[in-house]
Amino acid sequence: MNLKNNTGLLNKLEEYGKSDIYPFHMPGHKRAKIEFPNPFQIDITEIEGFDNLHHPQGILKDAMEQASKIYGSDKSWFLVNGSSVGILSAVCGLTRRGGKIIMSRNCHKAVYHGVFLNELEAEYIYPQYIPEFGIQGGVLPEDVEKSLKKHPDTQIVLIVSPTFEGIVSDIKRISQIVHSYGIPLIVDEAHGAHFPFACQGEFPKSALDSGADVVIQSLHKTLPSFTQTAIIHWKKGYSDEKKIERYLQIYQSSSPSYLFMGGIDWCIGKMAEDKGKRLHLLAERLQSFRSQAEKFQHIRIPGRELSGKNGVYDVDLSKLVLSVKGTNIDGEKLSDLLRNQYHLEMEMCNTDYTLAMTSAFDREEGFERLFKALKELDEEISREDRLIPEVQKAVSYPQKACMNIYQAWNSQTDRIRIEDAEGKISGEFVYIYPPGIPVIVPGERLDRKIIEIIKEYKAKNLPVQGLKDKTVEYIETVMGE
Amino acid sequence: MNLKNNTGLLNKLEEYGKSDIYPFHMPGHKRAKIEFPNPFQIDITEIEGFDNLHHPQGILKDAMEQASKIYGSDKSWFLVNGSSVGILSAVCGLTRRGGKIIMSRNCHKAVYHGVFLNELEAEYIYPQYIPEFGIQGGVLPEDVEKSLKKHPDTQIVLIVSPTFEGIVSDIKRISQIVHSYGIPLIVDEAHGAHFPFACQGEFPKSALDSGADVVIQSLHKTLPSFTQTAIIHWKKGYSDEKKIERYLQIYQSSSPSYLFMGGIDWCIGKMAEDKGKRLHLLAERLQSFRSQAEKFQHIRIPGRELSGKNGVYDVDLSKLVLSVKGTNIDGEKLSDLLRNQYHLEMEMCNTDYTLAMTSAFDREEGFERLFKALKELDEEISREDRLIPEVQKAVSYPQKACMNIYQAWNSQTDRIRIEDAEGKISGEFVYIYPPGIPVIVPGERLDRKIIEIIKEYKAKNLPVQGLKDKTVEYIETVMGE
Repeated sequence: MNLKNNTGLLNKLEEYGKSDIYPFHMPGHKRAKIEFPNPFQIDITEIEGFDNLHHPQGILKDAMEQASKIYGSDKSWFLVNGSSVGILSAVCGLTRRGGKIIMSRNCHKAVYHGVFLNELEAEYIYPQYIPEFGIQGGVLPEDVEKSLKKHPDTQIVLIVSPTFEGIVSDIKRISQIVHSYGIPLIVDEAHGAHFPFACQGEFPKSALDSGADVVIQSLHKTLPSFTQTAIIHWKKGYSDEKKIERYLQIYQSSSPSYLFMGGIDWCIGKMAEDKGKRLHLLAERLQSFRSQAEKFQHIRIPGRELSGKNGVYDVDLSKLVLSVKGTNIDGEKLSDLLRNQYHLEMEMCNTDYTLAMTSAFDREEGFERLFKALKELDEEISREDRLIPEVQKAVSYPQKACMNIYQAWNSQTDRIRIEDAEGKISGEFVYIYPPGIPVIVPGERLDRKIIEIIKEYKAKNLPVQGLKDKTVEYIETVMGE
Repeated sequence: MNLKNNTGLLNKLEEYGKSDIYPFHMPGHKRAKIEFPNPFQIDITEIEGFDNLHHPQGILKDAMEQASKIYGSDKSWFLVNGSSVGILSAVCGLTRRGGKIIMSRNCHKAVYHGVFLNELEAEYIYPQYIPEFGIQGGVLPEDVEKSLKKHPDTQIVLIVSPTFEGIVSDIKRISQIVHSYGIPLIVDEAHGAHFPFACQGEFPKSALDSGADVVIQSLHKTLPSFTQTAIIHWKKGYSDEKKIERYLQIYQSSSPSYLFMGGIDWCIGKMAEDKGKRLHLLAERLQSFRSQAEKFQHIRIPGRELSGKNGVYDVDLSKLVLSVKGTNIDGEKLSDLLRNQYHLEMEMCNTDYTLAMTSAFDREEGFERLFKALKELDEEISREDRLIPEVQKAVSYPQKACMNIYQAWNSQTDRIRIEDAEGKISGEFVYIYPPGIPVIVPGERLDRKIIEIIKEYKAKNLPVQGLKDKTVEYIETVMGE
C-alpha cells in the first residue's frame, strides 16, 4: 500500500523533507538521517509486556526511572502531549481552585490556560527588557521576593527560563526565595532540554540543578525527539507529586503513542550515552560562527555579554537572535530573504530580529549556509533608525488586570473595533505565535499603547492569534465594563 | 545514526513488530505494510506553508474542511491527544462549571475526568445487561427520557456507543428525546470510526448520521491511523462549537505532531477513496468466520442476533467477543492460550470472554490462524458451570453516589483495606484497563457486592487500576464518611 494517490498534507511534508531547505527551526533532530523503523511497524497499544503509561509497572516504569536517574530528579514522567500538558498538570495539580499563582508575565499561553482552568488569581512579575535588542531580559529575584511579600497566600511561583530567545534567569536565587515561603518553584524550561546533557559551562545550568521543584522540558525543541514529546521532572520537598500525576492522567490521552514513548526513551538514552560530545561540537561551531559574525556591519547576535544586567543570569548560545534593529529591514524581511534567496527556514521572527534555532543535530552545512547568507545580506542592508514599537516590551510593562482570566474569558462580550477598544477590558487572549506569549490576557484593560502594538503587529503581518476575529480588526471585550 | 546501542523500549517495539505474533488488538492498521517516510524526515513545526492547528488558515484548515465534508459534519477537528481530549473538550465546553450531565454509567474514564474538571453533578443511565454473555447491552431511550424528565436542568447527555464489545444503542431515538429538551447529545463513538466508511448495512450506522450533535471517534482503534489520533465532529443546532474549540486549544499540545496530522489526513483520504471496498472484504471475512465458528461446542461469538433486546440496536461484527462463559476456562486463560500456543495477541479479556478486534487492514492469514486456534481449543475445553461474578454487571446496577466526583476526589481520605471498606465512600476510581470503565467512581458508597467484584478482579489477575495502592489491597475512602 502506498501513499501516492493522496494529495494532502503528508505528501507536502515529504516534499519539504526532501527539499534543500535547511531547518533552523524545531524539532531539534533537524531531520538528521536517523535510522528508524517504519512507524506503523512499532505503533502498538497496551499489550502484554508493554506496560501502561497511566499505571506503569514494567518497561515504561523502568524507562521513566532510568530517565529520572539520568536527570537527577526524584521523579520524571514522559509527556506525549507536549510541554503544554506538563505545565497544565503542574499548575492545576499544585494550586487550589480559586487560589493564587505568582508567574512571570512572559509565560507561554499554556500557563495562562492553567490559570483559567483552576480559576486562579495571577500575580505577574514583569521580566526585564533589553532595549538594545528589543528582547526580554530575565526575571529579577528581588521582584519575586517583593511579590511574595505582598502575596504570602500564593501557592506556586512559575517562571519561564530560558526564554524563547535563550535568556536564563537566576533560578538558584529565585528558588531559595520561593522556598523560604515554603512553596514550590515551577520552571518552564521548554527551551532548555539540552542543558542537562552539556559539559559544564558550555550551556546554561538546568533549573533542575538549580533548586527548582518542577521542571518541564520540551524534548522536541532542542533534542532529537518527535514534535509533541516532552518530559516533566519533580524534586521532593515542596510539592506532592501525586497531585501532578493525577492531572497528567486526566490531560493525557489514555492511548499514548508508543512511537512517541519509544522515541523519548531513545532520545534520552542517546543523549546520556553521548556524554556531551555532540553538544560540545555544537558549542565549538557556535563559538566560531559567533566570532566570525562579530565582523558584520549591521546584523548583531547577542551572546553571553548580556549576562549580569537586565535580570540576565546566563544565555543559551544555541539560540541565534539575528538582530536587525537599527537597519533598513525588519525581522520578517530578514526571514523572507533567508527563505526565498537561501532556502533557510527560521524558527520565528519579530519586528527587530529573526530567530535561528540550532541543536546538536545541526550539520556543518547548515552553519556554512547561514553564515554565507548573513554575510551577503549584511552587506546589502543599511543603517536606518526606524520607528518601530518595542513589541517585546508588551509583556515587560505592567498592564491593568481588572478581572481574573476565568471570569473574563467566560463573560458576555461585545465585539469592538480594536481601534476603539481603549479603556475596555479584554475578553480574549492576543498573542503572536510563535512564541505564544500573550500580550493581552482576558481581564486586562486595553490602553492606547497596547492597541498601537497590536495594530503594528497586524501591519507587519506577524502571526497574531487568540482573537475570535481572524482578520485582527475586532476584539471581544467584557460587556458592561 | 542508528538505534542499535539502545537497549530500551524502541528495540522491544521493533522486536515485537518483526515477530510472528498476530495483532488482534489496536491500532487498526494492524502493522500492515504501508509505505511510509522515515518519521524524522516529515516531523516539522509550524513553519511557513504548514499552517497552525490552533489557528488553522491554510493546509490544516483545508484538510479539516475536507474531512468534515467526507463525514457530513458541520465541523470536524483533528485530535492529536486521542479521543480523550475530544471527550474532555466536549464535556467541559458544553457544560457550566457545577452544572449537570446525564451520562451512561459505562463511559470511559475520560468522561468522568470531564465531570471532575467541571465539578459536574452526574446523573447515570445504567446500560442494560446481557446475562447470556456477561456483557453490557445498550442504553434504553426510555431511560434517557426518564432521566431528562427528572433532571430538566441537565446541560448535555453523553453516551458511549458502540461499547468496547461492539454494542450499539438506538442513537436516533435517543437524539430525538434529547433534542426535545433543547440540549445536545454527545456520543463517544471511539470504537466506531470505521462506521462512516462502510457500505450500508455491513456495519452499524454512525451516530453522526443518526442525530448526535457531537461525535468523537478514535481513528487509531479501527482505522489505519497512528495510536493517539482521533477526530471530533460537530453538527449545528444544539451546541456552540466555539466552546468546544476553546478547550481543544487548551487541552491539546501547542506543538501538535505533523506526523500525526499527516497520518490522520492520509487515513481519512484513503478510507474515503476506498469507497467501502476494504470494509466489504472485512464483512465477508467476518461472515465466513462467524458462520464456521457456529459449529464450536463451547466458544460462542455473539452477533447481530443480540439486536432488539437488552437495549441493543445493532452490533458491530468486527468485534469478536470470544465467550467462554459456562466452560472450564475463563477469558484470561483463553487469552494466555492464544498468546502462548498460537502467537495471537488479543485486545482485552474479562472473566467471561476474550476480545479480538478486527479491522479492514487484517490479513486473511490472521483470520485463518485465529480460526484454527479456536477450533483446537474448543475441542480441548469442556463445559463447566463456574461461579463467576458478573463483572460487567458492575456498571449495570445503580450504585449510591453520595458526593460529586470533584468533592470526593479532592477530599481528605483514609486508607482502608478493601475488605473492610463496606459502607464507606470511595475517594478513588477503580477500573479495569482496558476497557477503562470505572466500576467505582469517587463519591460512590462501597457495598458488599462491589467489594466482592474488586476482590475477584484481583484474584483473576485482571488489570485493576485507579487505586493509589497498586497492590489492590487498600482503597482511599472519604474521611469522616
